[in-house]
Amino acid sequence: MRDDEQAIRDLIATWLRAAAAGDLSLMLSLMAEDVVFLMPGRPPIRGKDEFAVLHSAAGNQFRIQAHSEFGELMVHGDWAHCWCRLSVTMTPVQGGAAVRRAGHTLTILRKQSDGAWVVARDANMLAPEAGPA
Amino acid sequence: MRDDEQAIRDLIATWLRAAAAGDLSLMLSLMAEDVVFLMPGRPPIRGKDEFAVLHSAAGNQFRIQAHSEFGELMVHGDWAHCWCRLSVTMTPVQGGAAVRRAGHTLTILRKQSDGAWVVARDANMLAPEAGPA
Repeated sequence: MRDDEQAIRDLIATWLRAAAAGDLSLMLSLMAEDVVFLMPGRPPIRGKDEFAVLHSAAGNQFRIQAHSEFGELMVHGDWAHCWCRLSVTMTPVQGGAAVRRAGHTLTILRKQSDGAWVVARDANMLAPEAGPA
Repeated sequence: MRDDEQAIRDLIATWLRAAAAGDLSLMLSLMAEDVVFLMPGRPPIRGKDEFAVLHSAAGNQFRIQAHSEFGELMVHGDWAHCWCRLSVTMTPVQGGAAVRRAGHTLTILRKQSDGAWVVARDANMLAPEAGPA
């Protein structure tokens, strides 16, 4: 259980580093084939392929800095869930004001047959935050 | 497994009816003691007691109509998760324009020792929706 918890903490940390670096292939390696991302104001992103298409279309327009704190992490067998307080600062690469978003995520993780944990379902509740980025 | 799925579908249906009726005690009976509600723009609501205080403070200011469709429901032992497409129309009891909110929820459910399923963690990604309510 402790090993699983540490593996999941490492996974989330790697995820944030990959997102900051715009490393799509690393991000894809951390998610289940049938991953689902849910967020306000748009339809679900379903599956690695859709995520890859959207990520590529968006391009690396922003430098991203993210900070995450676990509110909870619970492992139940080959499934787990965690929720985090996340703040993200997105700075346009081509100049302009940084945008800061903050809020919570609720993530469901799954242990694959090879023993690796991956993100299976993710709910993103980040909202724009006022004040200096 | 089929029985569990049906029990969870019934739970969500009862939840929506209870919310529409403003039936706080019924809602409380459907959630875990340590329930956590996550949503954009505010801190988590943690535990039945905090939910009850907030619900009572808000009062029954709105007539609520909700419609929910399951995107997924998966049972894994004594835990389960589902995500739904939810639309809610809130009509002020004292008159005024109705507000429509729509979007997704991601809910983690737990089977208690008495065999009853309850809401354990809930992520609410509803956003205001334009157009006639």
